[in-house]
Amino acid sequence: MKNKLGMIEEIAFSDTFYLRLRESLAGLKFLVKMKGFQNLTLTQDALKKWFGILQIVKPSAEEIPLEEALNRVLVQDIIANENLPRFDRSAVDGYAVSAEATIGASQFKPTIFELTESNVVGASQAKQVWTGNPIPKGADAAVMIENTQKKDGEIEVWVQMAPGDNVSKRGEDVRKGEVVAKSGRRLNPFFLGLVAALGKNQVAVAKKPRVAILATGNELAKVGSTPKTNQIFESNGVMLSAMCSELGAEPVDLGTVRDDLDQITEALKSGLTRTDAVITTGGTSVGGLDLVPDAVNKIGTPGIVVHGVAMRPGMPTALAVLEGKPVMVLSGNPVAAVVGFEVFARPLICKMLGMIREEHRLTLRAKMIRNVSTALGRKTFVRVKTFEKDGNVFAEPVSARGSGAISTMTRGNGFLVVPEDREGVAEGEIVAVRLFGALEEESKGV
Amino acid sequence: MKNKLGMIEEIAFSDTFYLRLRESLAGLKFLVKMKGFQNLTLTQDALKKWFGILQIVKPSAEEIPLEEALNRVLVQDIIANENLPRFDRSAVDGYAVSAEATIGASQFKPTIFELTESNVVGASQAKQVWTGNPIPKGADAAVMIENTQKKDGEIEVWVQMAPGDNVSKRGEDVRKGEVVAKSGRRLNPFFLGLVAALGKNQVAVAKKPRVAILATGNELAKVGSTPKTNQIFESNGVMLSAMCSELGAEPVDLGTVRDDLDQITEALKSGLTRTDAVITTGGTSVGGLDLVPDAVNKIGTPGIVVHGVAMRPGMPTALAVLEGKPVMVLSGNPVAAVVGFEVFARPLICKMLGMIREEHRLTLRAKMIRNVSTALGRKTFVRVKTFEKDGNVFAEPVSARGSGAISTMTRGNGFLVVPEDREGVAEGEIVAVRLFGALEEESKGV
Repeated sequence: MKNKLGMIEEIAFSDTFYLRLRESLAGLKFLVKMKGFQNLTLTQDALKKWFGILQIVKPSAEEIPLEEALNRVLVQDIIANENLPRFDRSAVDGYAVSAEATIGASQFKPTIFELTESNVVGASQAKQVWTGNPIPKGADAAVMIENTQKKDGEIEVWVQMAPGDNVSKRGEDVRKGEVVAKSGRRLNPFFLGLVAALGKNQVAVAKKPRVAILATGNELAKVGSTPKTNQIFESNGVMLSAMCSELGAEPVDLGTVRDDLDQITEALKSGLTRTDAVITTGGTSVGGLDLVPDAVNKIGTPGIVVHGVAMRPGMPTALAVLEGKPVMVLSGNPVAAVVGFEVFARPLICKMLGMIREEHRLTLRAKMIRNVSTALGRKTFVRVKTFEKDGNVFAEPVSARGSGAISTMTRGNGFLVVPEDREGVAEGEIVAVRLFGALEEESKGV
Repeated sequence: MKNKLGMIEEIAFSDTFYLRLRESLAGLKFLVKMKGFQNLTLTQDALKKWFGILQIVKPSAEEIPLEEALNRVLVQDIIANENLPRFDRSAVDGYAVSAEATIGASQFKPTIFELTESNVVGASQAKQVWTGNPIPKGADAAVMIENTQKKDGEIEVWVQMAPGDNVSKRGEDVRKGEVVAKSGRRLNPFFLGLVAALGKNQVAVAKKPRVAILATGNELAKVGSTPKTNQIFESNGVMLSAMCSELGAEPVDLGTVRDDLDQITEALKSGLTRTDAVITTGGTSVGGLDLVPDAVNKIGTPGIVVHGVAMRPGMPTALAVLEGKPVMVLSGNPVAAVVGFEVFARPLICKMLGMIREEHRLTLRAKMIRNVSTALGRKTFVRVKTFEKDGNVFAEPVSARGSGAISTMTRGNGFLVVPEDREGVAEGEIVAVRLFGALEEESKGV
């Protein structure tokens, strides 16, 4: 296992290795060493296998006040308990009349109506209404005040109206009994407004899944401390926690442990008792010590169900199930950890929240301004900087620096995902970019 | 003022009025009544005038822990205080060697290296390294373990290396002294990771601007109560509050008041003492009582600086300045309030946060599947449902139901913004849609 995954990690980090492999037809020893490679699982197969074992059920629900429900996910359909508008309303300031009585009316030949205060108007009567007021019985249109002239308890109407003119009909926005928001829908401000308009001040939403984050590695120094010469600062924890928060999960920090089987095992066990899912970062290859998968398998069954994924970066990613809970063993390399999260934690959290479907990052079409070469057989996540120029969207690769370079995620704003059956993308090709940051220049107008 | 704005509101709500106006060449009285219309201010002029008077300065700063900094906005540049990586690191598990010594090496003619534990390696020496380990002095490449064979304190190297092969060079990710994140940048998870990698556990961010939200109107019933026959539920407050939260402001609920000059004045004053900005909704035309602008002008100077904006919906929007603070008087119609927020509150909050530029909603190009007619002279915000089909993006208008219909914001997922000099958009035209909801079907792959 150790050697196999050590090798997988190396493939992930070498830009030249795969080309050399394909060029090399000599060397039987070389081919024998590729066994681990043959075991890589395609991303979609990995997800399917993992989800098949996990059997994620409906999320637990909680009733919360509407004003706390932004970005939460509904666990039941919201059905309109009444019509919106609740009654026929005037859409203008003016007079409610029967449209039929205005036939032939013009500025040169106005129709005269008697003003009334009653809630029922006759054919020759009009009632003053302000925007939002109920339309009285007998009336079916509202004439704007500008198209009238008031004279001694009467009004002149200068325009011919059709039934329904300037009237917001009862139920025209929402019909009673209609499903206005489906279970599994994330609530944006407009859904909150709609729910409030129906008179509800509480909603039933999915409880936030608690996701433990554990960083492992002898080389890791705590942020804020003074690192030794050969140490680096632990930075994946805060990043993965924020990614959890963004999706609506509640991150639980398990801190950092050394590459020590017992320490890792204890931390994993602690995470499993306190949370609904565990993410680890590091320890799948750093220092050649694959201790996290070993620790996982030591704790229980089925343990690791996928180890080694046909993607780049993030090849040494492992997926596990312990006590019926999902465990994701991500690479310690920052970008590989991000990709592992995107490919596995994102759909997992969406499923745990009971979302209708996985919430993807928004995808934009863009024109490549440089070639990118990728390895056949690996789904490759190329970081690109997407920008707009003269109304067209372009993408420039920024990922030459390797999977350890977190700055490719801050210099870039999107992933170009090159599928397994492609060896790259050519300059000028139109590609789909999954945005994870703001565009450099926005489109304007039509 | 009352009549003028009453009229403006009516124009906003009538789908047929403008066409009738242009058709009507007769009727002098009619034209006289259009005076208010002439006074409408273009959105960009309104914003410029308001911002000119406001003179927004740099935001107040606060130092917060990195783990609380997601989506907060930096108030100073983050400069790398060291290189990333901090030292030349091996990108693979294997052996550090001098590349020059491997010239001519192959599986059939390996180069032999003596293994050493020293931090300095000679030309014929190699040191074992795991991914992430420092590259010792004298070495400039790392050979992958697969391309070697260990034998009694020596290794055979089977491949020829170039200097830098499989080495992450010191500073190749981030160079010491480099600005890694600019002041005014919103922090996503990847920026948090990068800041942590530099060893910082605190960041200086803009304090959240506090924005008061006040709903006005006799017709409003509190959500959760039993409304009278002619009442509707107050729903804009929770929606506008959520929109503030999304942008990184802190909403402060001032509740609901009736169309009463004193009540409105008191509420506004209370908001001004407790917050950095005030948003009101309603009371610009409902019931013909334009009391909010009157209340604003009663409180102080300069008071209302723009009243009536050439946009649809949201024409009766007013902008004011009181005690040097921004006040936005939005329509009571939900969609008009949303549009008022998008056009004025969004750039305001971005500016108060010290953002580099206004944070726009993401814009997608889409093909219109139906005609839309809009009024000349008004910037029109058409709600559209944007969806993907066979790799193309289409937009279907959903806004036929008027500015009161909040469901157009939940059935739709974007605004098509038709500029003032257009009378609509034709079927088949490619338009830019500002997304406010998820796409119906995502793009996949390249």
